[in-house]
Amino acid sequence: MIEKTLPFSPEEYERRLNKTRVAMENAGIEVLCVTDPSNMAWLTGYDGWSFYVHQGVVVFLDRDPWWWGRSQDRNGAIRTVWMEDSRAYGYADHFVQSTERHPMEELAAQMRAMGVGTSRIGVEMENYYYSARAHAILTHELPDATFVDGTTLVNWCRTVKSEEELVFMRQAAKISEKIVDGWLERVEPGVPKNHVVAEIMRDAILGVDDAWGDYAAIVPLLPSGSDAAAPHLTWDGRPFAKGEATFFEISGCYRRYHIPFCRTVYLGEPPDLFKHAEAALVEGLEAGLDMARAGNRACDVAEALAAPLEAAGITRGARCGYPIGLSYPPDWGERTISLRAEDETVLEPNMTFHFMPGLWMANWGLEITESIRITEDGPAECFCDRPRKMYVKP
Amino acid sequence: MIEKTLPFSPEEYERRLNKTRVAMENAGIEVLCVTDPSNMAWLTGYDGWSFYVHQGVVVFLDRDPWWWGRSQDRNGAIRTVWMEDSRAYGYADHFVQSTERHPMEELAAQMRAMGVGTSRIGVEMENYYYSARAHAILTHELPDATFVDGTTLVNWCRTVKSEEELVFMRQAAKISEKIVDGWLERVEPGVPKNHVVAEIMRDAILGVDDAWGDYAAIVPLLPSGSDAAAPHLTWDGRPFAKGEATFFEISGCYRRYHIPFCRTVYLGEPPDLFKHAEAALVEGLEAGLDMARAGNRACDVAEALAAPLEAAGITRGARCGYPIGLSYPPDWGERTISLRAEDETVLEPNMTFHFMPGLWMANWGLEITESIRITEDGPAECFCDRPRKMYVKP
Repeated sequence: MIEKTLPFSPEEYERRLNKTRVAMENAGIEVLCVTDPSNMAWLTGYDGWSFYVHQGVVVFLDRDPWWWGRSQDRNGAIRTVWMEDSRAYGYADHFVQSTERHPMEELAAQMRAMGVGTSRIGVEMENYYYSARAHAILTHELPDATFVDGTTLVNWCRTVKSEEELVFMRQAAKISEKIVDGWLERVEPGVPKNHVVAEIMRDAILGVDDAWGDYAAIVPLLPSGSDAAAPHLTWDGRPFAKGEATFFEISGCYRRYHIPFCRTVYLGEPPDLFKHAEAALVEGLEAGLDMARAGNRACDVAEALAAPLEAAGITRGARCGYPIGLSYPPDWGERTISLRAEDETVLEPNMTFHFMPGLWMANWGLEITESIRITEDGPAECFCDRPRKMYVKP
Repeated sequence: MIEKTLPFSPEEYERRLNKTRVAMENAGIEVLCVTDPSNMAWLTGYDGWSFYVHQGVVVFLDRDPWWWGRSQDRNGAIRTVWMEDSRAYGYADHFVQSTERHPMEELAAQMRAMGVGTSRIGVEMENYYYSARAHAILTHELPDATFVDGTTLVNWCRTVKSEEELVFMRQAAKISEKIVDGWLERVEPGVPKNHVVAEIMRDAILGVDDAWGDYAAIVPLLPSGSDAAAPHLTWDGRPFAKGEATFFEISGCYRRYHIPFCRTVYLGEPPDLFKHAEAALVEGLEAGLDMARAGNRACDVAEALAAPLEAAGITRGARCGYPIGLSYPPDWGERTISLRAEDETVLEPNMTFHFMPGLWMANWGLEITESIRITEDGPAECFCDRPRKMYVKP
């Protein structure tokens, strides 16, 4: 008998499943093939670094969800999902990365056997883990089914966080704070970047108090000087240098829940360019935090941010935030709402976002961000409690 | 003027491009849309954690490759690719995770403008970073093009490693050795798992000597006891316990090149079950290493491994290895050759593999593996030099 320690209560999983089924019915989907690892975990508890092979969870309106994946990973499934072992199916290993066979042939065969081969089937068309070939084969093998695009159907069910989820996010926030305190202390001219990253990783995984650290869905990003123009460069072994700004984009992670958090440090005396940008950015952040209230819209936050930046002559081309929560690589965003001018989604209590107005100019960059919760009746609550400014080490 | 420090010589990139063009011509592909980040990096040098949005490299027979991605990531492209800045194109941010627009509309428009909208276009149908929707939109937007499946076309060009690549892999191997030495010293009954992982991460990123550590494409895996039946479970905060085996699957990484390496440690006196399995596995590994010679086939290695295991009553269902080199999450394998009975690929000098005959039984597991290079005229060379056995800490 395998001892299972599921992260959430049975009632929580039941609520999630019911919410998903309502969304399926509204979308005219009878059977939903979930391939996003975050959605799989949110619905069933499944957890493992097995998403580099085809796998998924099939959600029915009238039966428990059904996990499928590589045979060897079924051992992980029966240790992590709330369903009975009989609801986990492993396909033979010769389907893995084969030129002759494809796991979607097996999924189709199993779905036919379960009597849903002619159903209205939802698939996540836009997901890292549902390839163009996977879709081509699944549709070819189930010619009598009707396929419906179910991209982000489950993600949308995840936007409002439960109390149980918020407990995890507060643990992640404490880890994020620990990471920030650590790098701020260690960054000095002459210290190689990878040395600081090594300690960031150590802090992130050690965690705090009773919260062991999990891996974040994105590695630490910390470009310096001109490279800070490029938001997604990773580190190397060169030293930090005087006269350069470096932004640190990191996230603590507790049981797959993330709290991203970014601050910038300037080594030396920052030029006016940075001081002016900092002032405008902090003013914009505070305006955005005040606007991030239940009943307001995603675009209202973006516009509140944009005004002081524009007044300072800074035009951002990018969205300024996205929902956060349970995630797997390669992204810690939930890929539903975007904080930007064209998104009119109405904010609800317990939605959680990374309010992320990074400035990436031609040859410099600045990041000061907050991970936030929309409250019942006030401005947004920040998960982390650290000074909202550009740090300076003279 | 931005200083670029490309990891490889211009001649190396030229050889890679030529090799790819020959493969394209053999496959009847005029224009190849590469979306696999490993292939993008191998061809152009592009490096960054930006693969969570749509991006790619387009390879032509008669022009330099063309990088495309999110506007903000163009700043990273012009800092990392060998092509001129004019060969890097950024699309506007409102294409990112939008319900109204898709980056593939932009790619199609640009390809039409470049006069290749009616070409024979290769796409990587089976890749994490080419979604079902991406393909649907690209083909819809380019109705006069002919689409050809170019999955693993570039990956196959990568199977035989250059001398420059082998230098990087030997650096990665030194990091892998350091990681193994570290965890072996630290694992003791009562030590929480995440504490050992924190030090693994630190060792991996600190690197050795002049080799700074890069992030590996897979996080450390280290399930214990019954959980070692499940190869892809990640860690938690529970302590190591006496009377349990734990396997450690890790990889050093140097400038995106990996050397995965696995060993198992038993805390206490191992039962006969483990001793017998260890003996058979080591005998199988040695038989496989001897068979892994240029001119032999992938399946020959698998069969040499299988014989002593079968004699010991152990049946493995899974392949026992895959090619390794340059990789990005979620997989450090190259997804071409598999060391298994049905793969008759002939081995060539300087092919590199993770020879990975993990045993994942119903309630226990054992991993002893080697990353290897196929040599000109002898048995395989192992990248790491550590005892090929199950470690025991009494």
